[in-house]
Amino acid sequence: MKLETLQDLYLLELKDLYSAEQQIIKALPKVIEKANSPDLRAALEKHLKETRNHVTRLEQVFQMHGEQAKKEKCKGMEGVLDEGDELVGKDATPAVRDAAIISSCQRVEHYEMAGYGTVRTYAEQLGHERAAALLRQTLDEEAAADEKLTQIANSRVNIEATRTA
Amino acid sequence: MKLETLQDLYLLELKDLYSAEQQIIKALPKVIEKANSPDLRAALEKHLKETRNHVTRLEQVFQMHGEQAKKEKCKGMEGVLDEGDELVGKDATPAVRDAAIISSCQRVEHYEMAGYGTVRTYAEQLGHERAAALLRQTLDEEAAADEKLTQIANSRVNIEATRTA
Repeated sequence: MKLETLQDLYLLELKDLYSAEQQIIKALPKVIEKANSPDLRAALEKHLKETRNHVTRLEQVFQMHGEQAKKEKCKGMEGVLDEGDELVGKDATPAVRDAAIISSCQRVEHYEMAGYGTVRTYAEQLGHERAAALLRQTLDEEAAADEKLTQIANSRVNIEATRTA
Repeated sequence: MKLETLQDLYLLELKDLYSAEQQIIKALPKVIEKANSPDLRAALEKHLKETRNHVTRLEQVFQMHGEQAKKEKCKGMEGVLDEGDELVGKDATPAVRDAAIISSCQRVEHYEMAGYGTVRTYAEQLGHERAAALLRQTLDEEAAADEKLTQIANSRVNIEATRTA
């Protein structure tokens, strides 16, 4: 299919994010199991719930445009999650593993911030105001999840990891 | 190798970024060739030069720690670049291709912002002040490159892409 218009690219990128979110829903529970810090577990549990809601929001956006919710396999997220799985699965002390989990999850959040920043801008430029508002909500939640992980890293987790030195 | 300390994780993540930067240096010239907007080409050319300098900075950081500069294959960047290559290679009008290039490059920038944000924080927490300063410079340049792409998208490129509708 030729990408003739920004609308074509917008729909393609929504499908990429729809795939990305579902990959995260599959991967995150295994990561949560490996987390040691209760703060980190709680933050990731909360974000898993939010992620399920992001899928629902994307389905609402597809519906607004009269399109079926479809996935376009997101190779970017696949690579980021594969790498995270490898890093988090390494033999490590609990504190260092928590730092590794935060690092991996922040890469996931940043990928999504780039993706949602893009589709929100397209939606605005294409005059899809209701869709833009929904996509902005998800973008804000991704940014807040990233900020929360930074706080946890700064407050406790990494400091403990330096102490195991 | 067991990750016993934050220093172990820090060195591993530096190797991941060293791989990521070199993958970008290989991929970016092909992307620049496909860009239509002179502003976009100029921004990407500038960023390619900066990226070469990011590799040099990482080598300086390895040297500060008495370590050889080594790559740990960055699967995350590999996935993000594969996806970008596929998206940018699709049959598209020049304006829509430029929008796709911006979208792909912003995913790359965000991956790097997450990566450098992490190693800069580790360097600070581990008391490596000179390394932290170098890593912060690169982080600032990645963020500025991302911001420049947003400006280009907002000012001209995507607006033209909506007009081809």
